[in-house]
Amino acid sequence: MMYFETKFPVRYYETDQMGVVHHSNYIRYFETARNMMMADGGFPIQVCESEAGVMIPIVSVECRFKHPARMGDELTVSAAIDEVPMAKLTIRQQVCNQRGEVCAEGSVTLGFIDSKTFRPVRCPERLARLIENRMNDR
Amino acid sequence: MMYFETKFPVRYYETDQMGVVHHSNYIRYFETARNMMMADGGFPIQVCESEAGVMIPIVSVECRFKHPARMGDELTVSAAIDEVPMAKLTIRQQVCNQRGEVCAEGSVTLGFIDSKTFRPVRCPERLARLIENRMNDR
Amino acid sequence: MMYFETKFPVRYYETDQMGVVHHSNYIRYFETARNMMMADGGFPIQVCESEAGVMIPIVSVECRFKHPARMGDELTVSAAIDEVPMAKLTIRQQVCNQRGEVCAEGSVTLGFIDSKTFRPVRCPERLARLIENRMNDR
Amino acid sequence: MMYFETKFPVRYYETDQMGVVHHSNYIRYFETARNMMMADGGFPIQVCESEAGVMIPIVSVECRFKHPARMGDELTVSAAIDEVPMAKLTIRQQVCNQRGEVCAEGSVTLGFIDSKTFRPVRCPERLARLIENRMNDR
Repeated sequence: MMYFETKFPVRYYETDQMGVVHHSNYIRYFETARNMMMADGGFPIQVCESEAGVMIPIVSVECRFKHPARMGDELTVSAAIDEVPMAKLTIRQQVCNQRGEVCAEGSVTLGFIDSKTFRPVRCPERLARLIENRMNDR
Repeated sequence: MMYFETKFPVRYYETDQMGVVHHSNYIRYFETARNMMMADGGFPIQVCESEAGVMIPIVSVECRFKHPARMGDELTVSAAIDEVPMAKLTIRQQVCNQRGEVCAEGSVTLGFIDSKTFRPVRCPERLARLIENRMNDR
Repeated sequence: MMYFETKFPVRYYETDQMGVVHHSNYIRYFETARNMMMADGGFPIQVCESEAGVMIPIVSVECRFKHPARMGDELTVSAAIDEVPMAKLTIRQQVCNQRGEVCAEGSVTLGFIDSKTFRPVRCPERLARLIENRMNDR
Repeated sequence: MMYFETKFPVRYYETDQMGVVHHSNYIRYFETARNMMMADGGFPIQVCESEAGVMIPIVSVECRFKHPARMGDELTVSAAIDEVPMAKLTIRQQVCNQRGEVCAEGSVTLGFIDSKTFRPVRCPERLARLIENRMNDR
């Protein structure tokens, strides 16, 4: 699989009155980690949008919240791709704290649309090759 | 089923560089609508936390994104409960625009935990009765 | 002066671990109220951007935080314009709770830039007239 | 002066439909950088709240927006303290992009309140000493 992980210290504004990271922020952590994976692979999402003319909107997300994250935690957020995409790209994502506890895990499905016609297109060739070349990350 | 809906005009800060509402905000719309449903039923979530001593953390969420929402749209966000909860509460949620198009739909599962011991508890009696009394909303 | 106010019930995700609305959200309330003022005047910001070709970026903001807002509060957020703008538009803004206590107050200065050249321009004629016609709101 | 800086790559959800970082996020960058400064100094804000029993609410903020930040930018966010605080702590803050352009700059004033009585107190001794010891950072 293609695999990427990065560290996000919890930011104060991400907490809520329960004293933990608000659940919507895991959805944002997921996105940020997968965008960093693409940038790390040399094909940042903004380049994909401007040069390849392909936008990558989210189709669906599911997330299970397992353990609260708190201010002071340093979270490791990962993104993993199991197969080269055709019309859809599915990414498994996880957030762990510094003790290795899983805070949240889920998966995200992305589509590809032409930024002029707004019609669905295939995964851009360059992105497909990038993913293919990283299938042995893990 | 117990049913509630409310209107949220799109706020500028909710848009992203694709020119549409960022997907994470639907998760926030979902939450705000279900909290308003509880307040509308006379048992606001902050009262549940302070008086009943029960916190209602989110266990899981899934959401499918169907149609982009944009600045200028007035969204109708709904929450629907099909049965009186025991240990878990599942709520179906939907976001439609002013033309009746479904922008996003999904469901959320909530748990109940004691705010002192942080252990799972049953749905507070008062909440269970509130839901029961509204089973014929639709 | 041109004057507008609207009501925002506090949303759960806007609270932080201090149990109050996170300060950054007042900046967002300010924006949402002034955008609603423009829409209320018949010239919504997205129309200004798409039809008049003028974007209205923020130049500066200052805000004093006076009293915490909490979940359950219904906030009244206001925007007031004292004079018809030329190159810059200054808006005074305030957030009060349901007991009339001022939670936050401040002011925002906006500029006008051509959406093609990104150069500063005068306040669009239609907006200037709209503001002029509402100078006696209060 | 006590000085700290850190790097924040722009996150996609921070952009808005103008294609730039939404202005409210600079207020959040400011906060995150100053909290990291405290953690870097060995006295994280959550420890101050839990052990010293002192909360550090924001009193006021002012920010001037100079240059748009965009997806792909790596921002350097700084916090600088010019003098050891008594009743109030003032922090100067700046956001620069990777080309050294100033995107935003401003200042924030914080107060100190007892977390039980909610009354204003002096700057906690430990924080005052920490700041004093770092007056020669720059």
